[in-house]
This record gives sequence, structure tokens and C-alpha cells, in this order.
Amino acid sequence: MYRRNLIAAALACVLAFSTTIARAADPLPSWNDGKAKQSITDFVAKVTKASSPDFVPPAERIATFDNDGTLWCEQPMPVQFYFALDRVKALAPQHPEWKDREPFASLLKGDLKTALAGGDRALLELVTATHAGMTTVEFEQIVRDWIATAKNPRFQQPYTACVYQPMLELLTYLRANGFKTFIVSGGGIEFMRPWAEKVYGIPPEQVVGSSIKTKFVMRDGKPVLMRLPELNFNDDKDGKPVGINQHIGRRPIAAFGNSDGDREMLEYTQGGSGSRFMLLVLHDDATREYAYGPVQGLPATKMGAFTQALHDQAKKDGWTVVSMKDDWKRIFAFEK
Amino acid sequence: MYRRNLIAAALACVLAFSTTIARAADPLPSWNDGKAKQSITDFVAKVTKASSPDFVPPAERIATFDNDGTLWCEQPMPVQFYFALDRVKALAPQHPEWKDREPFASLLKGDLKTALAGGDRALLELVTATHAGMTTVEFEQIVRDWIATAKNPRFQQPYTACVYQPMLELLTYLRANGFKTFIVSGGGIEFMRPWAEKVYGIPPEQVVGSSIKTKFVMRDGKPVLMRLPELNFNDDKDGKPVGINQHIGRRPIAAFGNSDGDREMLEYTQGGSGSRFMLLVLHDDATREYAYGPVQGLPATKMGAFTQALHDQAKKDGWTVVSMKDDWKRIFAFEK
Repeated sequence: MYRRNLIAAALACVLAFSTTIARAADPLPSWNDGKAKQSITDFVAKVTKASSPDFVPPAERIATFDNDGTLWCEQPMPVQFYFALDRVKALAPQHPEWKDREPFASLLKGDLKTALAGGDRALLELVTATHAGMTTVEFEQIVRDWIATAKNPRFQQPYTACVYQPMLELLTYLRANGFKTFIVSGGGIEFMRPWAEKVYGIPPEQVVGSSIKTKFVMRDGKPVLMRLPELNFNDDKDGKPVGINQHIGRRPIAAFGNSDGDREMLEYTQGGSGSRFMLLVLHDDATREYAYGPVQGLPATKMGAFTQALHDQAKKDGWTVVSMKDDWKRIFAFEK
Repeated sequence: MYRRNLIAAALACVLAFSTTIARAADPLPSWNDGKAKQSITDFVAKVTKASSPDFVPPAERIATFDNDGTLWCEQPMPVQFYFALDRVKALAPQHPEWKDREPFASLLKGDLKTALAGGDRALLELVTATHAGMTTVEFEQIVRDWIATAKNPRFQQPYTACVYQPMLELLTYLRANGFKTFIVSGGGIEFMRPWAEKVYGIPPEQVVGSSIKTKFVMRDGKPVLMRLPELNFNDDKDGKPVGINQHIGRRPIAAFGNSDGDREMLEYTQGGSGSRFMLLVLHDDATREYAYGPVQGLPATKMGAFTQALHDQAKKDGWTVVSMKDDWKRIFAFEK
């Protein structure tokens, strides 16, 4: 009996030990073995090993992530657009004038194409009409309520479930290696903060995004911040390095994106001294997610475009390009 | 021999234990016992004790600190003004036109009063002339070089030595209790970041301040951020809650200031639910530092004014007012 217990204990030990080893050996289980995965683990190994010439102190291990199309699915339309659309529907009874005014008239008829034909101006009008006129606390609650029930129309899953499992593992892996992870998105900063901590483990103070102006006022004797119908900052393209400097004050050593909107962030990251890591997610899996971008036969989309020029630059500059089809074993946690 | 060793070991134990107790009992050794110190330790105790009705999870323990006059000495003039003055002198040979143009002409003659008579416009012109026109990296180096040698004219100590020892202890104490400490200053964000981590233990991403606009450009094939002669954000008065929301995305549960410029930050902090802590530093010690503010006989200064109205509001709302004279055992580390 005694011996049997001893053997059982020894076996349990070995098992626990092997599991630990296996885990340590594969911090990215949803990534297929290959060049992309290898480039990530190689980079992390060299910047974290104290004796490495590429060693970077923990305080400087800043990693920035785009959100739409990099951390979560941005198709068939960016999530914040669906949010704005639902807000238009909810607010329409208070705005009878919208029936004759674009982009609202077309949106209410379900004609997204005409609604968005107005370009950036129509988009800004849509955003300010749906994102302004309330306090920051009220807006946060509106986002929380919406995201708790809204679903991606194709996957019929909450948007917060349509996040990429390999990227969640990557965030965890980087943090376990002393990195501080930030979102740097063209999306609204206050649209992401209410759920980013729970979904990505990224707290509000590490979310950088586009914003409208706010104003400090006393309302009924209570100090609040009112959201104004005026753009404050557009955190896209050449705005991303500006936003990074403004919020973080350090140049990232690693940056992750998926479109032309991320180009300057990756260039800025690459431009620092020492070892740097730049990665682009290529959407080439129409079966499990979507296929759009520079690969032959894929239509380029206006939103979230991964152009041929960006692909060429990535190749020339040694940026890692992740094929969702080939490099990701599993895209969503809800996949069987 | 054996017995003597045992006794020695026991004594060493008791000594180590007592020292630990003493340390635990006084995390703020430069604070005199009294209401101010007590209000701090009471607040920290109640928000950190898991069984307390006022318990706050660590992620929400946000504390914001003004800088000038709250963490470091702002007299006889705010430090950044001396920096700008030295920059004007250094740049004057490249700007012969400054000899006939205010505020530069008066500054170069050493007539600060006339130079600043131009008010905010003169100040903005001074800031943009001395803080813009270079990359963010170049500006950081200029600040580093300057702060390494410049000295407070009265104390003849580096400005970074003219920081308040009791406030350094407070920062450490709060962080040891799970708080995340931020600077929220009307001063320049990029003027503080180069030294705030070393001096206060506050990393660049936790510094909020005023800023000028920057622009991402490729210079000689290298991606840089150029500093433009245009105000981006004024992080003072009602700008402070706006800056807090923009950078942190949470309402602080504790805020520390010393002037009318901090009023809205303290109001905003107080306006949240649950237990809150607001503190103002009162400069009433002309012997060891400076005396300015609402106490009878003290002249109110324009910069960093602690008005009678603010004092009344603090009293009415239960904010802690720290008397530097009575509450601080030691103001500077360089004091004998």
C-alpha cells in the first residue's frame, strides 16, 4: 500500500511536471508551428533574456495592438458601426427630421451603401449624433448594455466572443514576459474601454483610440464630463504614433496590426533602436472568418484595407505576416 | 556559548520583528502625527481592507497628483519657466529678431515682470518658441541635459532634489497599498516624463499634462514625431478632469493638489461613488520653503494660487489641508 502510494505520488509528480513543461513549451497553443509563431517566440526570448545583447528592461517592453481586424472580427462591418446603427434606430423617435436627412434616412431604410456614400463627413455626423450629448458615465452604460446583447450577424455570437483566440494567447504570453499591452485603435476610446479589460485583460488606462471632445460641467450639483459633438482626435494612420506618444510616452518595441491604418504605427515601432517586432494579420480564411486583402483573388475592401503596397513593405522590412488560414489552428474560442 | 548564541539569535529576531512593526506602523516618517496624516492612513485602511464596506478593488485605486507645488517646489517661479528662460538664452544667437520682440526682449534683459505682462499669449509664444521645432526624442534629450545641471536659485539644489519628501513617502505608501499613481499637471507632459520615473517612480504612461501638437513625419528615412508650435491640450483647471478621462478612463478615488488649478480635479474625484480622498498642500512655511496662499498675512500669488474660496470649499467638503509647517517633519531630503 505504502509503495503503491509512493508510485502514485511519483507518477502524479511526473505528470504535473510534464504538463508544466508542455505548457512552458507552448504558450501559444492556437498557433500552428511555423515561421510566424517562431518569429514571435524568438523575439520574446531575445528581449527578455538578461544576457542577450537585445535585452530590453521590463519597463520598456511596450506592445501596441490595433483592435478592429487585429484582435476582433471587423466584418461584415466594423462593430462600432453596428453600435451606431442601433443607436440611430433607438434615437429615431426623438429625431423625426432624420427621415429626410442623410446619412440617417438611408440608415433607417437599411440602405447602408447610400448612407456611407457621404464618406468621412457622413461618418462623423453619424458618430456625433450617436456618441455625443450624454455624460461619459451614461455613454459607458449605453456601450455596456449594447455589447452584452448584440451579436455578429454571421456568427450569431456576441461581438466580444468574436475575438481571435490566438491573439488572446499572444496578449497573455507577452504580459507573462513582462510586456505592458496597449490597444491603439482607430475606434472610439470610450467604445472599447467598457469591455477591453474583461475581454483582453487591458485596463482603460492602456486603451488609446479616437475621441470626441468632452467638457467638465456641474450638472445638478454633480461634476460630470459631457460628450460634445466635436472630434477631438483621430487615432488612425499617422495619428497612431501621435496617440502612442501622447498616451504612452515611449516608443513600442512590438506592434500588431492588419491594415493600412496601422502602417505608421509599425513604421514608428520599427524606427526605434534595438530589436523590434512588427506583425500584420492577413485575413485569408473565408471559411472560418473572412478573406480580404492583397492575396490574389481576394477583394480589397475600403475599410481595414491590407493593400498590396503594405504587403510589399512588410516583406521588404521583415515584418511578420500571419496567414489566418495557415498560422492559426483555431480562430475563435467558440469553434468546435 | 550555546546559550549565549541562542539569546543573541532571539534578540536579533525581536529586533528585526520590532523594526518591521515600526515600519509597518509608520509608512510616512516625514509626516508629523496629526489630523492630516491620520486622514491619509484611515482612508487607505478602509479602501484596502477586503471586509470593509468601503473596499475598492486594486484596479480602481487610481490616485492623481498635481506636480508644481504639490510634488515639487514651484517657487520662486515654476521650474518649467526657468527651463524656457534658459532655452531663450541658448537660442537667442539664432534669433536676432528677439532683441526687439516681446516677451523675448525683456526676458533677455532679465526683466521677467515685463516679459510676463503679456499674459497667456506671451506665455504661449514663449513655450512654442522654446518647446517646438524639434523631434520628441530631441526635446527629451534637451530636458534631460537641462534638468541634470539646473538648480533652484534659493536652495542651490537640483530641481529634482527640491521634491517634497513627505509626498515621495506618500506615493510609495499608496503604491504599496495597490494604488496606481498618476501625475496630472498643468505643466508640459514631455517636460515631466524624462525624469518623473526616476524621481517619483511614475512611468511616462502615467504622466498627464499639457501638450503641444506633434506630427508624424519621415525625416532622412526615419520615422519621427515633430513638435509643432501649436497648443494641443491645456491640462489645467477644468482641463484636468478631461485629461484624466482621456488618459486614465477611470475617476480617481484620491487626488492631491495645492491650488485653484486643481479644484476641478478634486471636485471630479469627490463626485464619484464610494469613499474618496481629496488633499490640498498649503504653503505656509516661509522658513523651510515658501509661504503663499489664503492664510492671514500671506500674499496670494497669481501662479499656483490657493485662494480663500478654495480654502473655504476644502473645509466645507471635508478635504484634507496639509500645513507644510505643522504637518511635515521634513520638507526636503537635503534638509539636515
